[in-house]
Order: sequence, then C-alpha cells, then structure tokens
Amino acid sequence: MIIEEKIKKLGLELPEVRPMINAKSCVKAVHTGDLVFLSGVFPYYGGKYKYIGKMGSNLTPEEGYEAARFCALNLLTELRNMIGDLDKVTKVVQVTGYVNVAPEYSDEKIGYVTDGASDLLAELYGESRGRHTRTSFGVFKLARNFPVEISAIFEVKK
Amino acid sequence: MIIEEKIKKLGLELPEVRPMINAKSCVKAVHTGDLVFLSGVFPYYGGKYKYIGKMGSNLTPEEGYEAARFCALNLLTELRNMIGDLDKVTKVVQVTGYVNVAPEYSDEKIGYVTDGASDLLAELYGESRGRHTRTSFGVFKLARNFPVEISAIFEVKK
Amino acid sequence: MIIEEKIKKLGLELPEVRPMINAKSCVKAVHTGDLVFLSGVFPYYGGKYKYIGKMGSNLTPEEGYEAARFCALNLLTELRNMIGDLDKVTKVVQVTGYVNVAPEYSDEKIGYVTDGASDLLAELYGESRGRHTRTSFGVFKLARNFPVEISAIFEVKK
Repeated sequence: MIIEEKIKKLGLELPEVRPMINAKSCVKAVHTGDLVFLSGVFPYYGGKYKYIGKMGSNLTPEEGYEAARFCALNLLTELRNMIGDLDKVTKVVQVTGYVNVAPEYSDEKIGYVTDGASDLLAELYGESRGRHTRTSFGVFKLARNFPVEISAIFEVKK
Repeated sequence: MIIEEKIKKLGLELPEVRPMINAKSCVKAVHTGDLVFLSGVFPYYGGKYKYIGKMGSNLTPEEGYEAARFCALNLLTELRNMIGDLDKVTKVVQVTGYVNVAPEYSDEKIGYVTDGASDLLAELYGESRGRHTRTSFGVFKLARNFPVEISAIFEVKK
Repeated sequence: MIIEEKIKKLGLELPEVRPMINAKSCVKAVHTGDLVFLSGVFPYYGGKYKYIGKMGSNLTPEEGYEAARFCALNLLTELRNMIGDLDKVTKVVQVTGYVNVAPEYSDEKIGYVTDGASDLLAELYGESRGRHTRTSFGVFKLARNFPVEISAIFEVKK
C-alpha cells in the first residue's frame, strides 16, 4: 500500500465513491487487457464538489490547479476499487484534461489547470511509472459547470 | 445474431454505411489486439442526417438524446462491418460524447444527450458487458453543425 | 528507414524535439503492449511555431491544414524517438484533431484542418497501414492560441 501511504503523507485522502450520474449505463472503470480506462471525473473531495465555475470567471488558475488535483484523487479511488491496490499500476498511460474556460481566461494557463492532476500522479508514481502522455484543451461547457474534468488510462499488472 | 435481433425488437435498424468524408485517409474502424477503435459518428438514420443544429438553440434535450441514440446505431454498423457479428463484443470499453451546445443550453443536460448512446449500448449488451466508461462535454462547434458526435472503443473476442 | 525517406522526398523533415511544457510530469509518448500513445502536439516546424491564431479569425482553412500537417510531423518525431524507427509502425490507430475555431469559422471546414495530419499519415504509411479512425471537433480555446492540436495512437511491432 505504498501509494496510499504517499497520499496520506501529502495530507490527502482518497475521496469516497460517488454514484455515477447515469449508473444504469455507465461505470467508472473498465479493465481490458493490461489497461484500465477511467470515466471523466470532477473535483469531488471531502464530501462535496469543491469548485464550481469557469476558469477566468470566478476561479483563479491556482483554484483550477487544485480542482484538477482533486480529480486525480477521484481517478485513484475508482482505480483502487477496480484493481484492489494502487501499487499494481505499472504505468500512467494517458491523462486528458477538459478545462471549462470563460472567454477572458488566458490560453497560457489552460495546461496549468491540468497540471494539478499530472503533477500529483507523477509525484505518487515517480518519474518512470508516473509521467504520462497528455492532451488538454479549453471546453465551452462542462457538466454542472465544473471547472475541469479529467479522464485517464492506466496500465496495470495482470 | 442476438444483438441484431434485439435492435429489431426495439423497432430500430442498423443504418446503411455512409462513405467517410475523407475516405482516402480515414476509416471507420481499426482493430488492434482485442480492441476496436471507432471514428466519431453523427446521427445518420433512415437515409439521412436526422438532426442538425445546436443543443439549446433549435433542439431540445430529448431530440439530442435521440440523435445520440442514432449515433450509437452508426457505431454498431461500423463495428459489425469490421468484426462480422455484433455478438463477438465482450465489453463496451469507452464512449465519448461531443455535444454541440449553444451558450444558453443548460450544463445540467450535457450528459443527458450522450445518455442516448450509452443507454442503448447498455440495453443491448446488458449490465456486465454493456456498461462502459464515459466522458462527455460541450463543444464549441461540430462538423456541419451536427448536434452530437460519438466515438467509442469496444473489446471483442479474438 | 523507408518512412523517413518518404518524408524527405515530400520536401519535409522531422522537426527537432521541443521540451514538454510540463516536463516534470508529462512525456510525449508511452508504449504499452503494442500501442504507443502520443501527447497532443502543436505546429512546431523549422525551429518555431509556424502558426498562431484561431481558424476563421486570422488563419485560412489552407493554413490550418498545413498547421495540422506540421503537427503530424511532430507526432512522428516523438514516435521515432520512442520506438527508434518509424518503419516499425504496423497501423495508425487513431487521430484526434482539436481545432481552435472562431465563431465565424465554417463548420464545414473543421475536418479539413485535421485532414492535414490525416492525409500525411495515410500518404506515408499507405492505405492498409496508414488509414485511421478519427474524431475532430472545434474547441473554444487551445494552449497559447495555437490553431490546432493533434494527438494519436499507433500500433507497433514488438
């Protein structure tokens, strides 16, 4: 349980599982071969959604960064529930960051929001396992006006 | 041909194949390992594109839902043409929904549009095979002003 | 080195590697099983970013097409650096095109931009290996106001 220990040492926790919005048709994780695909998640943490709003409207880049960090913790909760132990991850393969931007938000700071997720995953898993491919862009609207949605693919031991 | 029978019992059909817009460089499906990746598709059904326009402008959430349902049928046509028989699917892995939203469209109803595809796939394949990971978001512009585009990844038997 | 020869015959070159914007947490390519996932890339070529701006604002469709072509060359640089030789590619699996559109840009011409990447990959790898699945859509904002971002997945020989 090395990864879960690291999360605690950072003063963080794995958030409780929220039910899927469309629970009858969707799941949070699918395991196929050596890959686990994860549904897009939002900044749920400490029993509630911590941030609502658009980047550049009511949220600062630093708040967006923290929102994405919470998203990464949600991904890790879902992944642990699928594979049992986060130490089984052999590689973080891909992170996609959907950043909910107002027109006035600086395009220089779109990737910075998604860094909140990327930096945590790289810190937890280290340079060779944790660094991942990434795509990030500014979307026009996100569900319930959340500031960021993050989806990911992990490689895990059989 | 259990899945095709189920489609008929729902009063639906697999739409005829449309040529790719850029047929010289793109294909609708690629099979690699146990996965089939499918190109993003639009609501073509009954010999025409059934819906054109933006959510929140000239289309209701219910029309968007049906548009996404037609997209799912297009995905299934392409998948059948690739693997020969829809019963070979062992898992719906991932669905991504690109919802073409006007500024006034409710962010509460973005996922509802994509549900049109998710619900049909889950109904056809059942709880353990059919439920899938999903990401859905509101895009600024889609090709030819279609209301929704859906792409997907399926796992299939060798 | 057949593919690299073809690139030269087209009067093109593989651009020099740029450092990742978030080098401490992200990488440009991850190899998992038979697949290589590539991070989204921008139109860097000849030592600089060749195009900045939004489609329909300060750039024509033809300039967007060329920007996407440069993106494809960036993907190929990253891929060669990961697998050593571009001839090891057995299939171009998936291309995703994020097109940075102004409100006045024609939705008829979104896919045309991404064609700049698709056409080059299909030309280099030929019909059976090079044609790929694709999704393309108009995004609201891209990092540093680049006109297009392209990500991709390739299948490679073990």
